[in-house]
Amino acid sequence: MSALSEHAPVDLLGLVAYGELLAFDRLAADARLAPDLRRRAALSELAAAEIGNYRRLADQLTALGVAPEEVMEPYVAALRAYHDSTEPRDWPEAVTKAYVGDAITDDFLGEIAERLDEPYRGLIGDVLHESRYAEFAAAEIRAAIETDPRVANRLSMWARRLVGEALSQAGRVAAADRGALTALISRDGLDVPALFRELTSRHAARMAAVGLNN
Amino acid sequence: MSALSEHAPVDLLGLVAYGELLAFDRLAADARLAPDLRRRAALSELAAAEIGNYRRLADQLTALGVAPEEVMEPYVAALRAYHDSTEPRDWPEAVTKAYVGDAITDDFLGEIAERLDEPYRGLIGDVLHESRYAEFAAAEIRAAIETDPRVANRLSMWARRLVGEALSQAGRVAAADRGALTALISRDGLDVPALFRELTSRHAARMAAVGLNN
Repeated sequence: MSALSEHAPVDLLGLVAYGELLAFDRLAADARLAPDLRRRAALSELAAAEIGNYRRLADQLTALGVAPEEVMEPYVAALRAYHDSTEPRDWPEAVTKAYVGDAITDDFLGEIAERLDEPYRGLIGDVLHESRYAEFAAAEIRAAIETDPRVANRLSMWARRLVGEALSQAGRVAAADRGALTALISRDGLDVPALFRELTSRHAARMAAVGLNN
Repeated sequence: MSALSEHAPVDLLGLVAYGELLAFDRLAADARLAPDLRRRAALSELAAAEIGNYRRLADQLTALGVAPEEVMEPYVAALRAYHDSTEPRDWPEAVTKAYVGDAITDDFLGEIAERLDEPYRGLIGDVLHESRYAEFAAAEIRAAIETDPRVANRLSMWARRLVGEALSQAGRVAAADRGALTALISRDGLDVPALFRELTSRHAARMAAVGLNN
């Protein structure tokens, strides 16, 4: 096994760990947009769950003799730019971002995890979001559209922007990466165009499920 | 038992639950002030722990047939004003706020919990902060003073302001309250001046322990 592919799982854990830390930060801030205390608490709990995941990943990295902050650092700028360019202006945008963005990330990580050895495979699998998060966000989107059907159009455009920014982010991550993730993806001859088609098709199904146009 | 004292534990759980929700929100925001990823993650984890506590309290309220948001609502303005008037400007102020503010709240809650029946007593006891939080904050304050001894003076003044604002908050909470907490405190003939002396003396010991002047 080359030095390059030995790096791969550690780099991936660093990327995911920083993603969790950032997701926590942004969800916690977005919770302030909630229209009432119940919803605010719900989004705060989703945020807190990201930190639980962060801790698992950081512990694994520490057990491997790697300082978490060291492997997270290369991805800071790439991931922050995504959040900076997709700051929700209100509650429906906040829950749409949670619904669309987290699911695409999870789908991608799920595909990657299948190609990893244990314990990485199980660990990445564990930090994927539980379905109740998507259910909460989906219910909030449907409620917003029911209250005002015109919201559907605005949220559809917002979701397309989120996907566009997520793709730009993927490009930035690939550029920031030490080549390890690329090596990982190509190790098993992963068909990147096929992966993108798969992610896109699942995204379209999710959009339709909450009444948004892809 | 009068209707008033039946309300008391539920009101107290509502107050503490909203306190947890707000502490989460502010700690998550303060984590952005961290000078590096390791410290940022550490403060984010403290924030996430508050949400774990919030969930326990909310579950207990729900089990009692009470909507958490309903009993939290009366305390929203009183508790928010404290945080609005004590927004840290930098990392040393953020950790000092965590160190000073959380400890006073915990001391107060600990005293109140002793006067409650089960399951309230155990529940309130469970949500008091673990000592590792205070240890993290204390280590950060000591490190800041070691880097620049002049910081001690500024943080001492900041801590005094925090205590002053916390006392104003206590007055606002008492005013917002339906009289239930007051009933609870007076039930066992609690000596309020003695309680304040006790809280003040523990606060002074904590300040001295990190090199701050009371």
